[in-house]
Amino acid sequence: MDIKGLIRTIPDYPKPGIMFRDVTSLWGDARGFRRVVDELVQPYAGTRIDKVAGIESRGFVIGGAVAHQLSIGFVPVRKKGKLPWKTLAEDYALEYGHDTLEMHVDSVKPGEQVLIVDDLIATGGTVEAAIKLVRRMEGVVVGCAFIVDLPDLGGRKRIEALDVPVFALASYEGH
Amino acid sequence: MDIKGLIRTIPDYPKPGIMFRDVTSLWGDARGFRRVVDELVQPYAGTRIDKVAGIESRGFVIGGAVAHQLSIGFVPVRKKGKLPWKTLAEDYALEYGHDTLEMHVDSVKPGEQVLIVDDLIATGGTVEAAIKLVRRMEGVVVGCAFIVDLPDLGGRKRIEALDVPVFALASYEGH
Repeated sequence: MDIKGLIRTIPDYPKPGIMFRDVTSLWGDARGFRRVVDELVQPYAGTRIDKVAGIESRGFVIGGAVAHQLSIGFVPVRKKGKLPWKTLAEDYALEYGHDTLEMHVDSVKPGEQVLIVDDLIATGGTVEAAIKLVRRMEGVVVGCAFIVDLPDLGGRKRIEALDVPVFALASYEGH
Repeated sequence: MDIKGLIRTIPDYPKPGIMFRDVTSLWGDARGFRRVVDELVQPYAGTRIDKVAGIESRGFVIGGAVAHQLSIGFVPVRKKGKLPWKTLAEDYALEYGHDTLEMHVDSVKPGEQVLIVDDLIATGGTVEAAIKLVRRMEGVVVGCAFIVDLPDLGGRKRIEALDVPVFALASYEGH
């Protein structure tokens, strides 16, 4: 199956010059969605994973499915102010300004092995913040899995420099 | 398994007098998350379902898992301005003011049978908007499934009045 063939490319979204990779067309396809989950978990066969951490909000869809596939728990990584209980927070830089991600303080226990999941890795800023949050709870990030990688934006190298393996199903050069 | 026992209740969140039902503690529990998905799909055994529509953003987690369990596609129902392609929009009332939900215009095909999933039903306003969106694409809503029902807020009756069956795992009277 051609996963890229099911990802819709939208030119000039959200602004001129950006080729937006829309994974919703892939999710809506029964065999595409199934395949994505199967392929995302394949590299971790034989690895103990205790929890999936999914990044708001497209990472919730694929993270929920991956957690179900692995029969493990799911924990959300959310934008500031969205989680109802006590949280840890990490800032990350945007093109202009910064933003904050949060996790519940008790969502990962010391020593738990965590797989971080999102739809796409670009600069890697949100993923790095998620890794820091998991590590502050003394969790071990065993990997980060994405549907789409935009390698020209440097996210993969940034995350691998943190000693976390990166896995993605579809890579778009020149984004 | 006691599903309610895994749902954390947070008093006075997001404002005084509200008992917030936090499903993230349930999702984080491996057996709890698995059980929720199993129980949510159980009433639909033998029913043809073509797609799961999950409502942003907690409905993405459970909707992604349910779609994976059923080996069908997942389509997102999002807040205004979040979807990158052409959309249909429906307004719904809030306590003060109103908000808008959107779906991609091609996310449901005529005659497709759709299960709508969210974490919680309260007044039913967002769910009603999602039903209208699916019906405008000539899809058939076979049911709406939730983890939590707050029956005193009237959502269940409102949705059943639209000829859509409602199923929820945990009901809290007097919310």
